[in-house]
Amino acid sequence: MALKKKPVTGMKDITPAEMQIREYVMNQIRETYKSFGFSQIETPCVEHIENLTSKQGGDNEKLIFKILKRGEKLNLAAAQSESDLTDSGLRYDLTLPLSRYYANNAANLPSPFKALQMGSVWRADRPQKGRFRQFVQCDIDILGDATSLAEIELILATTTALGKICPDNAFTVRINDREILRGMALSCGFAEESLEQVFITLDKMDKIGLEGVKAELLENGCSQESVDRYAALLSSVGKDAQGVRRLGEALEGVMPRQVTENLAGIMDTVSQVAETSFGLEFDPTLVRGMSYYTGTIFEVSMEGFGGSVAGGGRYDRMIGKFTGLETPACGFSIGFERIVTILLDNGFQVPGSGAKKAYLFEKGLEPRALAQVIREAMEERKAGVQVLVAQMNKNKRFQKEQLAKDGYAEFKEFYKEGLKR
Amino acid sequence: MALKKKPVTGMKDITPAEMQIREYVMNQIRETYKSFGFSQIETPCVEHIENLTSKQGGDNEKLIFKILKRGEKLNLAAAQSESDLTDSGLRYDLTLPLSRYYANNAANLPSPFKALQMGSVWRADRPQKGRFRQFVQCDIDILGDATSLAEIELILATTTALGKICPDNAFTVRINDREILRGMALSCGFAEESLEQVFITLDKMDKIGLEGVKAELLENGCSQESVDRYAALLSSVGKDAQGVRRLGEALEGVMPRQVTENLAGIMDTVSQVAETSFGLEFDPTLVRGMSYYTGTIFEVSMEGFGGSVAGGGRYDRMIGKFTGLETPACGFSIGFERIVTILLDNGFQVPGSGAKKAYLFEKGLEPRALAQVIREAMEERKAGVQVLVAQMNKNKRFQKEQLAKDGYAEFKEFYKEGLKR
Repeated sequence: MALKKKPVTGMKDITPAEMQIREYVMNQIRETYKSFGFSQIETPCVEHIENLTSKQGGDNEKLIFKILKRGEKLNLAAAQSESDLTDSGLRYDLTLPLSRYYANNAANLPSPFKALQMGSVWRADRPQKGRFRQFVQCDIDILGDATSLAEIELILATTTALGKICPDNAFTVRINDREILRGMALSCGFAEESLEQVFITLDKMDKIGLEGVKAELLENGCSQESVDRYAALLSSVGKDAQGVRRLGEALEGVMPRQVTENLAGIMDTVSQVAETSFGLEFDPTLVRGMSYYTGTIFEVSMEGFGGSVAGGGRYDRMIGKFTGLETPACGFSIGFERIVTILLDNGFQVPGSGAKKAYLFEKGLEPRALAQVIREAMEERKAGVQVLVAQMNKNKRFQKEQLAKDGYAEFKEFYKEGLKR
Repeated sequence: MALKKKPVTGMKDITPAEMQIREYVMNQIRETYKSFGFSQIETPCVEHIENLTSKQGGDNEKLIFKILKRGEKLNLAAAQSESDLTDSGLRYDLTLPLSRYYANNAANLPSPFKALQMGSVWRADRPQKGRFRQFVQCDIDILGDATSLAEIELILATTTALGKICPDNAFTVRINDREILRGMALSCGFAEESLEQVFITLDKMDKIGLEGVKAELLENGCSQESVDRYAALLSSVGKDAQGVRRLGEALEGVMPRQVTENLAGIMDTVSQVAETSFGLEFDPTLVRGMSYYTGTIFEVSMEGFGGSVAGGGRYDRMIGKFTGLETPACGFSIGFERIVTILLDNGFQVPGSGAKKAYLFEKGLEPRALAQVIREAMEERKAGVQVLVAQMNKNKRFQKEQLAKDGYAEFKEFYKEGLKR
């Protein structure tokens, strides 16, 4: 019976040290989001294959772990293709199951519905360092609120949570609106049909810089004039709410003024009321990959850490496509695994993890004496101390060194001939 | 695009009310077990199919959700049987992945290793009320401790956790040893080869009573003499540690005295040191289904609730079969879903879930005034209050009734012409 000792490809065993950090981060997120009136829900990890492959998941739909049909439903002889073999799969995100949950439970849910979800999702991505095929997502979503209160509360809640978890890491919220992205591009003369391609290039600004973006746009057949006009417009844009408003004036006639007014209003309110200190910047080149976003989009970057640690936006048309009932929606997702990685790499110590004591007793201690040792341990445990009771090994020094690595800072030794410290 | 609104067969969406209880119970269990020196770990939900089908899981191996191979590995045309289609599956319990984890990480783990696991498992059971195909298990296991300290600590930890979670429900720990089960049966003349069958019948004592058990044993071909001797022996057995010791005397020659001495010792120590009040009874008819148990077995039953709420035992030969290195092991599993069901049915209120306030503002409130409302909410949130900020609906009374159902006990209303309470 040969056991396969390693976890399945691309997934990992989680050690006690990492678990402590994961639990700590989850609790901070949960407590913060609850204080903003979000209600935690959970959906099954397994989802109908029809829902998973309904074209809402973009490229993630190529990465689904599909589950084999069972019993009579599985007819291997008659199966023509993969789809004959499977009727469910592991969820690749929490947004799709949220849509289904909302459709299934709408009658019993408040409106707007403020949902918090924390759970594992699975994607059969190519394995690479730091990216796993099972990972935790932490999402908040507000369904049924078309006003910018949704964006404001999502940004406040997420920045409050991040500020609690990583108080020593400065971070910046970058914010944009899909309509602005579009309005700017159209005003510079990029063709309507080239916009998706243009956005894909703009999305690389972080990595390849303005010069790289310009070169790629030209390579893709955009006109020199459009590219130059775009670069000029970009350089003229201010990063604050005033900048957003001025951009609105510049785009008069191409885009309704309401779009920039709305975004500037969100920025005003967030900066007026936030209790956490963070940067808030309008970033007219922010794209966000998923095609389902319809309005505001945002992303959080953290000092000393490449890539974003949180992201989200408004997706007013997705829920309606599923439920048949138009439902405005806006969400923010914290990059849980990235944050855990940052904390692990920084040697983060979970605060308030109480004293850990190890009671070591000599082999052969008689039952009554052992009972006395355990009774003492029970009393300390009752008082909130973590107490390990273990038999003393022959190599006591090594045993204590090992325990010390595991956080046991205090030792008490018990011998047959009586108590010693 | 027809959305399937219901969860997949046999799995369920979890509402905010149930989530609160689930989180509360998990935290109580986690904190208690940590105080006993257990370290939390996690394994992937997906496990190698070879490990899942290695005959350690008994009937659970028939209930595996299998995952389809991906990419080139899946060759439908050449597939002869189900096993050609799959290389992994969802774990059906946490014990098997723990064995793999131990084998994979043994070099970095303390000895003995005290593991805590809380996670979902999946079994394609026939759907029935209150039983789901995805459910959470909470297990503690001690690997590498052959002494009865393992049993003692497991029983103390589990009863402490249960006492905290259900302080108003009396519960009883019933305890037995597989060797005693065997010794008693052999001493009454049941044939060695009939023992497994005899145990299956004894396991029904709770449901069909002694008369039912006797009838079934006879039906299955056991001799009247054996059945009568067994009934007589059973009626003579005391339920306390002294009873266990006297049984040891009665079984002299059939079973080493060490077996009963060990069990009586566990009972002595547990009852001497427990800080929680519960019944502790020797139950010579306790069987526990899984065939991997090798010694002590235990089960917890709770007043007013049929069936057990926790169970476990010693399984000294399982880990070795996987790792090639004999490793004594003992575990205790809390029936998490059962306990959540009890609490939900009893209308349990999570203690210390702080004040919930709803701020309702009139539609059309100007941005500055809204910012003031949110600022006030942020201050209360900072102080630990859960504050929902929402636009007032036309039917304000209905809105407040709905919010009250959701636990919002205090309301504050904000109007365009100024603040009202």
